[in-house]
Amino acid sequence: MRTVLIIGVGAGDPEQVTVQAINAMNAADAFFVLDKGEAAAELTEARRALLARYVTGEYRTVVIPDPPRDRQAADYAGAVRDWRDERARLLAEAIERELPDGGTGGILAWGDPALYDGTIRVLETIRAAGHDVAFEVIPGISSVQILTARHRVTLNRVAGPVHITTGRRLAAGWPEGCDDVVVMLDAGLSCQVYRDQPIDIYWGAYLGTPDEILVAGRLGEVIDEIERVRAEARARKGWVMDTYLLRRTGS
Amino acid sequence: MRTVLIIGVGAGDPEQVTVQAINAMNAADAFFVLDKGEAAAELTEARRALLARYVTGEYRTVVIPDPPRDRQAADYAGAVRDWRDERARLLAEAIERELPDGGTGGILAWGDPALYDGTIRVLETIRAAGHDVAFEVIPGISSVQILTARHRVTLNRVAGPVHITTGRRLAAGWPEGCDDVVVMLDAGLSCQVYRDQPIDIYWGAYLGTPDEILVAGRLGEVIDEIERVRAEARARKGWVMDTYLLRRTGS
Ligand SMILES: C[S@@+](CC[C@H](N)C(=O)[O-])C[C@H]1O[C@@H](n2cnc3c(N)ncnc32)[C@H](O)[C@@H]1O
Ligand SMILES: C[S@@+](CC[C@H](N)C(=O)[O-])C[C@H]1O[C@@H](n2cnc3c(N)ncnc32)[C@H](O)[C@@H]1O
Repeated sequence: MRTVLIIGVGAGDPEQVTVQAINAMNAADAFFVLDKGEAAAELTEARRALLARYVTGEYRTVVIPDPPRDRQAADYAGAVRDWRDERARLLAEAIERELPDGGTGGILAWGDPALYDGTIRVLETIRAAGHDVAFEVIPGISSVQILTARHRVTLNRVAGPVHITTGRRLAAGWPEGCDDVVVMLDAGLSCQVYRDQPIDIYWGAYLGTPDEILVAGRLGEVIDEIERVRAEARARKGWVMDTYLLRRTGS
Repeated sequence: MRTVLIIGVGAGDPEQVTVQAINAMNAADAFFVLDKGEAAAELTEARRALLARYVTGEYRTVVIPDPPRDRQAADYAGAVRDWRDERARLLAEAIERELPDGGTGGILAWGDPALYDGTIRVLETIRAAGHDVAFEVIPGISSVQILTARHRVTLNRVAGPVHITTGRRLAAGWPEGCDDVVVMLDAGLSCQVYRDQPIDIYWGAYLGTPDEILVAGRLGEVIDEIERVRAEARARKGWVMDTYLLRRTGS
Protein backbone atom coordinates (compact mmCIF):
# COMPACT_ATOMS: atom_id res chain seq x y z
CA MET A 1 0.00 0.00 0.00
CA ARG A 2 1.05 3.57 -0.80
CA THR A 3 -0.33 6.80 0.64
CA VAL A 4 -0.78 10.12 -1.11
CA LEU A 5 -1.16 13.33 0.89
CA ILE A 6 -3.26 15.94 -0.90
CA ILE A 7 -1.84 19.08 0.64
CA GLY A 8 -3.69 22.39 0.45
CA VAL A 9 -1.06 25.12 0.26
CA GLY A 10 -3.07 28.32 0.08
CA ALA A 11 -3.60 30.44 -3.01
CA GLY A 12 -0.50 32.54 -3.39
CA ASP A 13 1.04 33.72 -0.13
CA PRO A 14 3.79 31.33 1.06
CA GLU A 15 3.00 32.34 4.65
CA GLN A 16 -0.59 31.17 4.27
CA VAL A 17 0.54 27.58 4.64
CA THR A 18 -0.34 25.65 7.79
CA VAL A 19 2.05 23.86 10.11
CA GLN A 20 0.19 20.66 9.19
CA ALA A 21 0.88 21.25 5.49
CA ILE A 22 4.56 21.89 6.19
CA ASN A 23 4.78 18.66 8.19
CA ALA A 24 2.99 16.80 5.40
CA MET A 25 5.42 18.20 2.82
CA ASN A 26 8.27 16.91 4.93
CA ALA A 27 6.65 13.46 5.20
CA ALA A 28 6.45 12.92 1.43
CA ASP A 29 9.18 11.06 -0.45
CA ALA A 30 8.07 12.37 -3.84
CA PHE A 31 5.71 15.03 -5.16
CA PHE A 32 3.44 14.51 -8.13
CA VAL A 33 2.59 17.49 -10.31
CA LEU A 34 -0.61 17.37 -12.33
CA ASP A 35 -1.02 20.93 -13.47
CA LYS A 36 -1.85 22.33 -16.84
CA GLY A 37 -3.45 25.39 -18.34
CA GLU A 38 -2.45 28.98 -18.90
CA ALA A 39 -1.42 29.82 -15.37
CA ALA A 40 0.36 26.48 -15.01
CA ALA A 41 3.94 27.61 -15.36
CA GLU A 42 3.63 30.31 -12.73
CA LEU A 43 1.63 28.13 -10.31
CA THR A 44 4.10 25.27 -10.74
CA GLU A 45 6.90 27.69 -9.93
CA ALA A 46 4.99 28.89 -6.84
CA ARG A 47 4.71 25.29 -5.62
CA ARG A 48 8.40 24.66 -6.27
CA ALA A 49 9.22 27.74 -4.19
CA LEU A 50 7.05 26.40 -1.35
CA LEU A 51 8.88 23.09 -1.34
CA ALA A 52 12.25 24.85 -1.46
CA ARG A 53 11.20 27.01 1.48
CA TYR A 54 9.63 24.42 3.74
CA VAL A 55 11.09 20.98 3.00
CA THR A 56 14.23 20.41 5.03
CA GLY A 57 15.39 17.11 3.48
CA GLU A 58 15.66 15.76 -0.04
CA TYR A 59 12.65 15.32 -2.28
CA ARG A 60 11.80 14.36 -5.81
CA THR A 61 9.24 15.91 -8.14
CA VAL A 62 7.47 13.79 -10.74
CA VAL A 63 5.55 15.58 -13.47
CA ILE A 64 2.56 13.69 -14.87
CA PRO A 65 2.22 14.55 -18.56
CA ASP A 66 -1.24 15.66 -19.60
CA PRO A 67 -2.83 13.02 -21.85
CA PRO A 68 -4.00 14.29 -25.25
CA ARG A 69 -7.62 15.43 -25.26
CA ASP A 70 -10.06 14.82 -28.08
CA ARG A 71 -11.79 18.21 -28.33
CA GLN A 72 -13.54 17.30 -31.58
CA ALA A 73 -15.27 14.22 -30.12
CA ALA A 74 -18.99 13.92 -30.84
CA ASP A 75 -19.47 12.58 -27.31
CA TYR A 76 -17.99 15.52 -25.38
CA ALA A 77 -18.79 14.23 -21.88
CA GLY A 78 -17.41 10.84 -22.81
CA ALA A 79 -14.20 12.37 -24.12
CA VAL A 80 -13.73 14.33 -20.90
CA ARG A 81 -14.29 11.13 -18.92
CA ASP A 82 -11.74 9.22 -21.05
CA TRP A 83 -9.24 12.00 -20.57
CA ARG A 84 -9.80 11.97 -16.79
CA ASP A 85 -9.46 8.18 -16.61
CA GLU A 86 -6.26 8.30 -18.63
CA ARG A 87 -4.84 11.01 -16.40
CA ALA A 88 -5.71 8.93 -13.31
CA ARG A 89 -4.05 5.91 -14.90
CA LEU A 90 -0.85 7.85 -15.56
CA LEU A 91 -0.81 9.13 -11.98
CA ALA A 92 -1.43 5.63 -10.56
CA GLU A 93 1.42 4.29 -12.68
CA ALA A 94 3.75 7.04 -11.44
CA ILE A 95 2.74 6.46 -7.80
CA GLU A 96 3.46 2.75 -8.08
CA ARG A 97 6.70 3.32 -9.95
CA GLU A 98 8.10 6.16 -7.86
CA LEU A 99 7.03 5.19 -4.34
CA PRO A 100 8.16 2.07 -2.49
CA ASP A 101 5.50 -0.13 -0.90
CA GLY A 102 4.50 1.69 2.31
CA GLY A 103 5.80 4.96 0.85
CA THR A 104 4.20 8.39 0.99
CA GLY A 105 3.71 10.81 -1.87
CA GLY A 106 2.49 14.37 -1.91
CA ILE A 107 0.35 16.45 -4.25
CA LEU A 108 0.22 20.18 -3.58
CA ALA A 109 -3.28 21.48 -4.22
CA TRP A 110 -3.82 25.18 -4.85
CA GLY A 111 -5.96 26.84 -2.17
CA ASP A 112 -8.15 24.32 -0.39
CA PRO A 113 -8.37 20.84 -1.98
CA ALA A 114 -12.15 20.71 -1.42
CA LEU A 115 -12.97 23.78 -3.50
CA TYR A 116 -13.11 23.45 -7.30
CA ASP A 117 -10.10 21.18 -7.39
CA GLY A 118 -9.96 17.80 -9.11
CA THR A 119 -7.25 16.08 -7.06
CA ILE A 120 -9.56 14.26 -4.62
CA ARG A 121 -11.58 12.99 -7.58
CA VAL A 122 -8.47 11.69 -9.36
CA LEU A 123 -7.47 9.74 -6.25
CA GLU A 124 -11.01 8.34 -5.96
CA THR A 125 -10.77 7.21 -9.58
CA ILE A 126 -7.44 5.49 -8.88
CA ARG A 127 -8.90 3.66 -5.90
CA ALA A 128 -12.03 2.70 -7.82
CA ALA A 129 -9.79 1.17 -10.49
CA GLY A 130 -8.44 -1.16 -7.80
CA HIS A 131 -5.06 0.40 -7.02
CA ASP A 132 -3.88 -0.04 -3.44
CA VAL A 133 -3.44 3.68 -2.84
CA ALA A 134 -4.75 5.45 0.27
CA PHE A 135 -5.02 9.20 0.49
CA GLU A 136 -5.39 11.93 3.09
CA VAL A 137 -6.44 15.53 2.67
CA ILE A 138 -4.82 18.50 4.40
CA PRO A 139 -6.94 21.67 4.22
CA GLY A 140 -5.49 24.92 2.91
CA ILE A 141 -6.46 28.58 2.85
CA SER A 142 -8.68 29.12 -0.21
CA SER A 143 -8.71 32.13 -2.50
CA VAL A 144 -12.15 33.01 -1.06
CA GLN A 145 -10.63 33.40 2.38
CA ILE A 146 -7.82 35.60 1.10
CA LEU A 147 -10.45 37.69 -0.70
CA THR A 148 -12.52 38.36 2.43
CA ALA A 149 -9.44 38.83 4.63
CA ARG A 150 -7.88 41.38 2.28
CA HIS A 151 -11.14 43.30 1.96
CA ARG A 152 -11.69 42.87 5.72
CA VAL A 153 -15.28 41.75 5.22
CA THR A 154 -17.27 38.76 6.41
CA LEU A 155 -18.41 36.12 3.97
CA ASN A 156 -21.94 35.94 5.33
CA ARG A 157 -24.09 38.57 6.97
CA VAL A 158 -25.38 37.92 10.56
CA ALA A 159 -26.76 34.36 10.54
CA GLY A 160 -27.22 34.66 6.75
CA PRO A 161 -26.37 32.12 4.07
CA VAL A 162 -23.66 32.33 1.43
CA HIS A 163 -23.60 30.74 -1.99
CA ILE A 164 -20.40 29.81 -3.83
CA THR A 165 -20.75 29.36 -7.56
CA THR A 166 -19.07 29.70 -10.94
CA GLY A 167 -19.11 32.52 -13.49
CA ARG A 168 -21.01 30.34 -15.91
CA ARG A 169 -23.78 29.68 -13.40
CA LEU A 170 -24.01 33.31 -12.33
CA ALA A 171 -24.44 34.31 -15.97
CA ALA A 172 -27.40 31.89 -16.15
CA GLY A 173 -29.16 33.62 -13.25
CA TRP A 174 -28.79 34.96 -9.73
CA PRO A 175 -28.92 32.11 -7.19
CA GLU A 176 -32.30 32.09 -5.50
CA GLY A 177 -32.78 32.81 -1.82
CA CYS A 178 -29.31 34.20 -1.26
CA ASP A 179 -28.00 37.77 -1.31
CA ASP A 180 -24.34 36.93 -0.71
CA VAL A 181 -22.67 35.14 -3.60
CA VAL A 182 -19.04 34.21 -4.19
CA VAL A 183 -18.03 33.71 -7.82
CA MET A 184 -15.05 31.63 -8.95
CA LEU A 185 -13.89 30.21 -12.26
CA ASP A 186 -15.27 33.19 -14.12
CA ALA A 187 -13.78 33.59 -17.58
CA GLY A 188 -15.01 37.17 -17.89
CA LEU A 189 -16.83 39.05 -15.11
CA SER A 190 -20.26 37.51 -15.52
CA CYS A 191 -21.49 39.89 -12.81
CA GLN A 192 -21.72 42.65 -15.40
CA VAL A 193 -25.32 41.73 -16.17
CA TYR A 194 -26.26 42.81 -12.63
CA ARG A 195 -24.60 46.21 -12.84
CA ASP A 196 -27.87 48.12 -12.49
CA GLN A 197 -28.86 46.33 -9.29
CA PRO A 198 -28.07 47.43 -5.71
CA ILE A 199 -25.08 45.12 -5.26
CA ASP A 200 -21.69 45.65 -3.64
CA ILE A 201 -18.72 43.83 -5.13
CA TYR A 202 -15.48 42.81 -3.42
CA TRP A 203 -13.16 41.75 -6.20
CA GLY A 204 -9.62 40.37 -6.09
CA ALA A 205 -7.13 39.03 -8.63
CA TYR A 206 -3.81 37.20 -8.03
CA LEU A 207 -4.76 37.21 -4.35
CA GLY A 208 -1.90 36.61 -1.95
CA THR A 209 0.73 37.26 -4.62
CA PRO A 210 2.83 40.37 -5.31
CA ASP A 211 0.51 41.07 -8.29
CA GLU A 212 -2.60 41.21 -6.09
CA ILE A 213 -5.28 43.68 -7.19
CA LEU A 214 -8.28 44.59 -5.03
CA VAL A 215 -11.31 46.66 -5.99
CA ALA A 216 -14.49 47.12 -3.95
CA GLY A 217 -17.57 49.29 -4.23
CA ARG A 218 -21.04 49.56 -5.66
CA LEU A 219 -21.08 47.17 -8.66
CA GLY A 220 -22.41 49.71 -11.16
CA GLU A 221 -19.78 52.23 -10.09
CA VAL A 222 -16.67 50.04 -10.13
CA ILE A 223 -17.34 47.37 -12.76
CA ASP A 224 -15.78 49.41 -15.57
CA GLU A 225 -12.64 49.96 -13.51
CA ILE A 226 -12.48 46.25 -12.67
CA GLU A 227 -12.83 45.39 -16.34
CA ARG A 228 -10.05 47.74 -17.23
CA VAL A 229 -7.54 46.63 -14.58
CA ARG A 230 -8.40 42.98 -15.21
CA ALA A 231 -7.81 43.31 -18.97
CA GLU A 232 -4.56 45.20 -18.40
CA ALA A 233 -3.25 42.62 -15.93
CA ARG A 234 -4.27 39.78 -18.19
CA ALA A 235 -2.50 41.33 -21.16
CA ARG A 236 0.63 41.89 -19.09
CA LYS A 237 0.80 38.45 -17.45
CA GLY A 238 -0.93 36.31 -20.07
CA TRP A 239 -3.47 34.92 -17.57
CA VAL A 240 -5.69 36.11 -14.78
CA MET A 241 -7.18 34.40 -11.73
CA ASP A 242 -9.89 36.34 -9.93
CA THR A 243 -12.59 35.75 -7.34
CA TYR A 244 -15.30 38.03 -6.04
CA LEU A 245 -18.06 38.38 -3.51
CA LEU A 246 -21.34 40.01 -4.53
CA ARG A 247 -23.51 41.40 -1.74
CA ARG A 248 -27.04 42.44 -2.68
CA THR A 249 -28.19 45.25 -0.43
CA GLY A 250 -31.62 46.52 0.49
CA SER A 251 -31.66 49.66 -1.59
CA MET B 1 -3.46 54.96 16.05
CA ARG B 2 -3.63 51.35 17.23
CA THR B 3 -3.92 48.22 15.09
CA VAL B 4 -5.77 45.03 15.90
CA LEU B 5 -4.95 41.80 14.07
CA ILE B 6 -7.95 39.48 13.78
CA ILE B 7 -6.17 36.16 13.55
CA GLY B 8 -7.94 33.05 12.26
CA VAL B 9 -6.46 30.09 14.13
CA GLY B 10 -8.32 27.11 12.73
CA ALA B 11 -11.06 25.17 14.46
CA GLY B 12 -9.34 22.80 16.83
CA ASP B 13 -6.08 21.35 15.54
CA PRO B 14 -3.08 23.40 16.70
CA GLU B 15 -1.21 22.33 13.55
CA GLN B 16 -3.92 23.86 11.36
CA VAL B 17 -2.51 27.31 12.02
CA THR B 18 -0.73 29.19 9.23
CA VAL B 19 2.75 30.66 9.33
CA GLN B 20 1.10 34.05 8.80
CA ALA B 21 -1.06 33.55 11.91
CA ILE B 22 1.99 32.53 13.96
CA ASN B 23 3.85 35.65 12.81
CA ALA B 24 0.81 37.78 13.62
CA MET B 25 0.58 36.25 17.13
CA ASN B 26 4.21 37.18 17.65
CA ALA B 27 3.59 40.75 16.47
CA ALA B 28 0.86 41.45 19.03
CA ASP B 29 1.65 43.10 22.37
CA ALA B 30 -1.63 42.06 23.94
CA PHE B 31 -4.49 39.69 23.13
CA PHE B 32 -8.12 40.54 23.68
CA VAL B 33 -10.54 37.73 24.52
CA LEU B 34 -14.21 38.27 23.72
CA ASP B 35 -15.66 34.81 24.09
CA LYS B 36 -18.74 33.63 25.84
CA GLY B 37 -21.23 30.81 25.72
CA GLU B 38 -21.28 27.15 26.61
CA ALA B 39 -18.11 26.06 24.85
CA ALA B 40 -16.29 29.19 25.96
CA ALA B 41 -14.11 27.72 28.68
CA GLU B 42 -12.74 24.99 26.46
CA LEU B 43 -12.25 27.24 23.42
CA THR B 44 -10.53 29.88 25.57
CA GLU B 45 -8.23 27.18 26.87
CA ALA B 46 -7.51 26.04 23.28
CA ARG B 47 -6.52 29.59 22.35
CA ARG B 48 -4.31 29.89 25.43
CA ALA B 49 -2.57 26.67 24.39
CA LEU B 50 -1.97 28.09 20.89
CA LEU B 51 -0.35 31.21 22.31
CA ALA B 52 1.78 29.15 24.68
CA ARG B 53 2.88 26.99 21.77
CA TYR B 54 3.61 29.61 19.15
CA VAL B 55 4.45 32.91 20.84
CA THR B 56 8.15 33.11 21.61
CA GLY B 57 8.23 36.33 23.66
CA GLU B 58 6.07 37.79 26.42
CA TYR B 59 2.41 38.58 25.92
CA ARG B 60 -0.59 39.78 27.89
CA THR B 61 -4.17 38.58 27.68
CA VAL B 62 -7.02 40.98 28.40
CA VAL B 63 -10.47 39.49 28.93
CA ILE B 64 -13.38 41.72 27.91
CA PRO B 65 -16.27 41.02 30.29
CA ASP B 66 -19.57 40.29 28.57
CA PRO B 67 -22.01 43.17 29.15
CA PRO B 68 -25.32 42.15 30.75
CA ARG B 69 -28.02 41.36 28.17
CA ASP B 70 -31.68 42.27 28.52
CA ARG B 71 -33.37 39.08 27.36
CA GLN B 72 -36.83 40.28 28.47
CA ALA B 73 -36.73 43.45 26.34
CA ALA B 74 -39.87 44.13 24.29
CA ASP B 75 -37.61 45.38 21.47
CA TYR B 76 -35.47 42.25 21.01
CA ALA B 77 -33.47 43.46 18.00
CA GLY B 78 -32.83 46.77 19.76
CA ALA B 79 -31.61 44.97 22.89
CA VAL B 80 -29.20 42.87 20.82
CA ARG B 81 -27.91 46.03 19.16
CA ASP B 82 -27.43 47.76 22.51
CA TRP B 83 -25.56 44.75 23.81
CA ARG B 84 -23.31 44.70 20.73
CA ASP B 85 -22.59 48.41 20.98
CA GLU B 86 -21.76 48.06 24.65
CA ARG B 87 -19.43 45.15 23.94
CA ALA B 88 -17.69 47.18 21.20
CA ARG B 89 -17.35 50.09 23.63
CA LEU B 90 -15.73 47.87 26.27
CA LEU B 91 -13.31 46.45 23.67
CA ALA B 92 -12.41 49.94 22.38
CA GLU B 93 -11.75 51.07 25.94
CA ALA B 94 -9.50 48.06 26.56
CA ILE B 95 -7.61 48.59 23.28
CA GLU B 96 -6.94 52.23 24.14
CA ARG B 97 -6.00 51.42 27.73
CA GLU B 98 -3.82 48.37 27.09
CA LEU B 99 -2.02 49.31 23.87
CA PRO B 100 0.38 52.23 23.47
CA ASP B 101 -0.19 54.61 20.55
CA GLY B 102 1.17 52.76 17.49
CA GLY B 103 0.76 49.44 19.30
CA THR B 104 -0.61 46.18 17.95
CA GLY B 105 -3.20 43.95 19.56
CA GLY B 106 -4.43 40.50 18.58
CA ILE B 107 -7.78 38.76 18.68
CA LEU B 108 -7.77 35.04 17.96
CA ALA B 109 -10.83 34.10 15.91
CA TRP B 110 -12.00 30.51 15.84
CA GLY B 111 -11.79 28.94 12.36
CA ASP B 112 -11.87 31.61 9.66
CA PRO B 113 -12.78 35.16 10.78
CA ALA B 114 -15.06 35.63 7.74
CA LEU B 115 -17.39 32.74 8.52
CA TYR B 116 -20.10 33.23 11.15
CA ASP B 117 -17.83 35.20 13.42
CA GLY B 118 -18.61 38.61 14.89
CA THR B 119 -15.09 39.98 15.39
CA ILE B 120 -14.85 41.91 12.10
CA ARG B 121 -18.23 43.50 12.84
CA VAL B 122 -17.14 44.55 16.34
CA LEU B 123 -14.07 46.26 14.90
CA GLU B 124 -16.24 48.00 12.28
CA THR B 125 -18.50 49.25 15.08
CA ILE B 126 -15.48 50.59 16.98
CA ARG B 127 -14.25 52.44 13.90
CA ALA B 128 -17.74 53.77 13.10
CA ALA B 129 -17.85 55.19 16.66
CA GLY B 130 -14.78 57.26 15.75
CA HIS B 131 -12.00 55.37 17.51
CA ASP B 132 -8.63 55.53 15.80
CA VAL B 133 -8.26 51.77 15.53
CA ALA B 134 -7.17 50.01 12.33
CA PHE B 135 -7.57 46.29 11.82
CA GLU B 136 -6.27 43.52 9.61
CA VAL B 137 -7.65 40.05 9.01
CA ILE B 138 -5.60 36.87 8.80
CA PRO B 139 -7.52 33.94 7.32
CA GLY B 140 -7.73 30.62 9.15
CA ILE B 141 -8.80 27.08 8.36
CA SER B 142 -12.57 26.87 8.96
CA SER B 143 -14.49 23.96 10.45
CA VAL B 144 -16.00 23.39 6.98
CA GLN B 145 -12.54 22.71 5.58
CA ILE B 146 -11.67 20.30 8.38
CA LEU B 147 -14.98 18.54 7.73
CA THR B 148 -14.33 17.95 4.04
CA ALA B 149 -10.66 17.09 4.60
CA ARG B 150 -11.45 14.50 7.26
CA HIS B 151 -14.17 12.91 5.11
CA ARG B 152 -11.89 13.25 2.08
CA VAL B 153 -14.66 14.74 -0.03
CA THR B 154 -14.95 17.86 -2.15
CA LEU B 155 -17.21 20.71 -1.09
CA ASN B 156 -18.74 21.17 -4.53
CA ARG B 157 -19.37 18.70 -7.33
CA VAL B 158 -17.72 19.31 -10.74
CA ALA B 159 -18.36 23.00 -11.55
CA GLY B 160 -21.36 22.88 -9.18
CA PRO B 161 -22.38 25.46 -6.58
CA VAL B 162 -22.33 25.07 -2.80
CA HIS B 163 -24.53 26.79 -0.27
CA ILE B 164 -23.47 27.48 3.33
CA THR B 165 -26.28 28.10 5.75
CA THR B 166 -27.49 27.73 9.34
CA GLY B 167 -29.58 25.03 11.01
CA ARG B 168 -32.42 27.48 11.50
CA ARG B 169 -32.54 28.30 7.80
CA LEU B 170 -32.31 24.67 6.71
CA ALA B 171 -35.26 23.87 8.98
CA ALA B 172 -37.24 26.56 7.14
CA GLY B 173 -36.65 24.91 3.75
CA TRP B 174 -34.04 23.39 1.47
CA PRO B 175 -32.08 26.14 -0.33
CA GLU B 176 -33.29 26.43 -3.91
CA GLY B 177 -31.14 25.61 -6.88
CA CYS B 178 -28.41 23.86 -4.92
CA ASP B 179 -27.86 20.20 -4.11
CA ASP B 180 -24.77 20.65 -1.93
CA VAL B 181 -25.42 22.37 1.36
CA VAL B 182 -23.17 22.97 4.36
CA VAL B 183 -24.95 23.51 7.67
CA MET B 184 -23.43 25.32 10.65
CA LEU B 185 -24.80 26.78 13.88
CA ASP B 186 -27.37 24.01 14.11
CA ALA B 187 -28.76 23.61 17.62
CA GLY B 188 -30.20 20.19 16.82
CA LEU B 189 -29.73 18.38 13.50
CA SER B 190 -32.30 20.26 11.44
CA CYS B 191 -31.50 17.90 8.56
CA GLN B 192 -33.74 15.27 10.13
CA VAL B 193 -36.73 16.58 8.20
CA TYR B 194 -35.03 15.45 4.97
CA ARG B 195 -34.33 11.90 6.14
CA ASP B 196 -36.59 10.32 3.53
CA GLN B 197 -34.87 12.07 0.63
CA PRO B 198 -31.91 10.77 -1.42
CA ILE B 199 -29.28 12.76 0.45
CA ASP B 200 -25.79 11.83 1.66
CA ILE B 201 -24.54 13.42 4.86
CA TYR B 202 -20.95 14.04 5.95
CA TRP B 203 -21.15 14.98 9.61
CA GLY B 204 -18.45 16.00 12.07
CA ALA B 205 -18.32 17.19 15.66
CA TYR B 206 -15.39 18.68 17.62
CA LEU B 207 -13.48 18.60 14.34
CA GLY B 208 -9.73 18.83 14.65
CA THR B 209 -9.79 18.03 18.38
CA PRO B 210 -9.09 14.76 20.22
CA ASP B 211 -12.88 14.39 20.69
CA GLU B 212 -13.56 14.49 16.93
CA ILE B 213 -16.47 12.34 15.74
CA LEU B 214 -17.16 11.62 12.06
CA VAL B 215 -20.19 9.90 10.55
CA ALA B 216 -21.06 9.68 6.84
CA GLY B 217 -23.64 7.83 4.81
CA ARG B 218 -27.13 7.96 3.40
CA LEU B 219 -29.01 10.46 5.60
CA GLY B 220 -31.94 8.16 6.36
CA GLU B 221 -29.59 5.34 7.34
CA VAL B 222 -27.19 7.23 9.61
CA ILE B 223 -29.24 10.06 11.12
CA ASP B 224 -30.32 7.98 14.15
CA GLU B 225 -26.71 7.05 14.86
CA ILE B 226 -25.64 10.70 14.51
CA GLU B 227 -28.39 11.75 16.91
CA ARG B 228 -27.26 9.15 19.41
CA VAL B 229 -23.51 9.92 19.32
CA ARG B 230 -24.22 13.66 19.31
CA ALA B 231 -26.46 13.40 22.39
CA GLU B 232 -23.95 11.18 24.19
CA ALA B 233 -21.06 13.52 23.45
CA ARG B 234 -23.07 16.55 24.44
CA ALA B 235 -24.06 14.95 27.75
CA ARG B 236 -20.45 13.99 28.43
CA LYS B 237 -18.85 17.34 27.53
CA GLY B 238 -21.69 19.75 28.27
CA TRP B 239 -21.61 21.26 24.76
CA VAL B 240 -21.33 20.19 21.16
CA MET B 241 -20.09 21.92 18.03
CA ASP B 242 -20.93 20.20 14.77
CA THR B 243 -20.97 20.95 11.06
CA TYR B 244 -22.21 18.88 8.15
CA LEU B 245 -22.42 18.69 4.39
CA LEU B 246 -25.61 17.45 2.75
CA ARG B 247 -25.33 16.17 -0.81
CA ARG B 248 -28.59 15.51 -2.65
CA THR B 249 -28.12 12.73 -5.19
CA GLY B 250 -30.04 11.78 -8.27
CA SER B 251 -31.82 8.73 -6.93
C1 LIG C 1 -9.62 25.53 -10.15
S1 LIG C 1 -10.17 26.70 -8.98
C2 LIG C 1 -9.17 26.35 -7.58
C3 LIG C 1 -9.63 27.02 -6.32
C4 LIG C 1 -8.73 26.70 -5.15
N1 LIG C 1 -8.83 25.28 -4.78
C5 LIG C 1 -9.03 27.57 -3.94
O1 LIG C 1 -9.30 27.02 -2.85
O2 LIG C 1 -8.94 28.80 -4.05
C6 LIG C 1 -9.50 28.17 -9.68
C7 LIG C 1 -10.30 29.42 -9.33
O3 LIG C 1 -9.98 29.79 -8.00
C8 LIG C 1 -9.89 31.20 -7.90
N2 LIG C 1 -8.51 31.51 -7.47
C9 LIG C 1 -7.54 30.63 -7.16
N3 LIG C 1 -6.43 31.26 -6.77
C10 LIG C 1 -6.70 32.58 -6.82
C11 LIG C 1 -5.96 33.76 -6.50
N4 LIG C 1 -4.70 33.68 -6.05
N5 LIG C 1 -6.56 34.96 -6.67
C12 LIG C 1 -7.83 35.04 -7.11
N6 LIG C 1 -8.57 33.97 -7.40
C13 LIG C 1 -8.02 32.75 -7.26
C14 LIG C 1 -10.29 31.78 -9.24
O4 LIG C 1 -11.68 32.05 -9.20
C15 LIG C 1 -9.99 30.62 -10.17
O5 LIG C 1 -10.81 30.67 -11.31
C1 LIG D 1 -19.83 30.95 15.55
S1 LIG D 1 -19.53 29.75 14.27
C2 LIG D 1 -17.81 29.96 13.99
C3 LIG D 1 -17.30 29.28 12.75
C4 LIG D 1 -15.82 29.48 12.55
N1 LIG D 1 -15.50 30.88 12.27
C5 LIG D 1 -15.27 28.59 11.43
O1 LIG D 1 -14.67 29.12 10.49
O2 LIG D 1 -15.41 27.35 11.53
C6 LIG D 1 -19.67 28.26 15.18
C7 LIG D 1 -20.12 27.09 14.32
O3 LIG D 1 -19.01 26.63 13.58
C8 LIG D 1 -18.99 25.23 13.52
N2 LIG D 1 -17.76 24.75 14.19
C9 LIG D 1 -16.77 25.52 14.68
N3 LIG D 1 -15.77 24.77 15.13
C10 LIG D 1 -16.13 23.49 14.93
C11 LIG D 1 -15.50 22.24 15.18
N4 LIG D 1 -14.28 22.16 15.74
N5 LIG D 1 -16.15 21.11 14.83
C12 LIG D 1 -17.36 21.17 14.24
N6 LIG D 1 -18.01 22.31 14.00
C13 LIG D 1 -17.39 23.47 14.33
C14 LIG D 1 -20.29 24.75 14.18
O4 LIG D 1 -21.26 24.61 13.17
C15 LIG D 1 -20.61 25.90 15.10
O5 LIG D 1 -22.00 25.98 15.34
